[in-house]
Amino acid sequence: MGHTGGSEIEQLVQLLARLPGLGPRSARRAVLHLIKRKDSLMIPLAGAMQRAVDAVVECQICGNVDTVSPCAICADPRRSQNTLLLVVEDVSDLWAMERAAVGPVRYHVLGGVLSPLDGGGPEDLSIDALIQRATDFSEIVLAVNATIEGQTTAHFITDRLAGLDVKITRLAHGVPVGGELDYLDEGTLSQALKARTSL
Amino acid sequence: MGHTGGSEIEQLVQLLARLPGLGPRSARRAVLHLIKRKDSLMIPLAGAMQRAVDAVVECQICGNVDTVSPCAICADPRRSQNTLLLVVEDVSDLWAMERAAVGPVRYHVLGGVLSPLDGGGPEDLSIDALIQRATDFSEIVLAVNATIEGQTTAHFITDRLAGLDVKITRLAHGVPVGGELDYLDEGTLSQALKARTSL
Repeated sequence: MGHTGGSEIEQLVQLLARLPGLGPRSARRAVLHLIKRKDSLMIPLAGAMQRAVDAVVECQICGNVDTVSPCAICADPRRSQNTLLLVVEDVSDLWAMERAAVGPVRYHVLGGVLSPLDGGGPEDLSIDALIQRATDFSEIVLAVNATIEGQTTAHFITDRLAGLDVKITRLAHGVPVGGELDYLDEGTLSQALKARTSL
Repeated sequence: MGHTGGSEIEQLVQLLARLPGLGPRSARRAVLHLIKRKDSLMIPLAGAMQRAVDAVVECQICGNVDTVSPCAICADPRRSQNTLLLVVEDVSDLWAMERAAVGPVRYHVLGGVLSPLDGGGPEDLSIDALIQRATDFSEIVLAVNATIEGQTTAHFITDRLAGLDVKITRLAHGVPVGGELDYLDEGTLSQALKARTSL
């Protein structure tokens, strides 16, 4: 007993369950959803996934993922090198910044953070490549997460860049736009007060 | 601005976001997860999805999904017709029963429930097919959800089967195994007390 309807279906369930945010139960729901919408969703999705497999490459300059290398951002003439270089942990952070339409900046994807406990050392991050690019820009913004590991990584990178003639900054801490003070931690509130601006 | 790295990636994000349980944000995370695990996950998943597209069919007897019709359950010689027929709303309910290893039963997938407000009428469900199969079995168990719509559907089916020489039952209500009384609604507790069994 214990049929889940054929090895093809079971295999699809098991692979989908390995995506972040999906477990075995939601993967089964997703597969049934796909089977019911074979023409409108399952066939297009299978095709899109195969096309992405064939097309996606990592940008050899910044570490972004795109269908060309250099990626569309690195190749964009409106984003000259003599501008801000945003150092991010991951491609998802690059995408988040692009959604925020932060302007004609460029990026450097580290590929993670320093995490001594998990065995993630500097050699796993693209720090050497960052040092080689750094002096092409007027300013390096360390746009890493405001976590302990992110801040540790920022300090490490600041030390490594110390000898170079380039300005290094980090993102501001403060109250999120739309955020309520009541829900914020003390650290954020304290930083927001220290960094207050005049009206 | 607003690059998310090539139209192939963007298209994959948009299609994945249409799966239940995934929104735009988790679809983007899933796509990055896939791109980072191209060989170990993305290529196998693209292949598994294409194979499922080609292989999956609906069982012409019970409405289950499988790679053959009649499905493996309907074709299983250990599940003779002269046994229980479990009437379920959806294939996911069939799978749930099979995971519970309820024994050598067979199934009839209705394909939904009666929901007059959403325009779901009896003609959308496989009730005529159920009536044709019903007398092949010793007992019909209406294993529909304990929702108002499920119970309405059960009543409707009971009326339709009334003339036939077949026993009709429903799943027991009661305390879920491992459940705490304190968290259960009054209806469940009241039904569990009425249906109490001797030790």
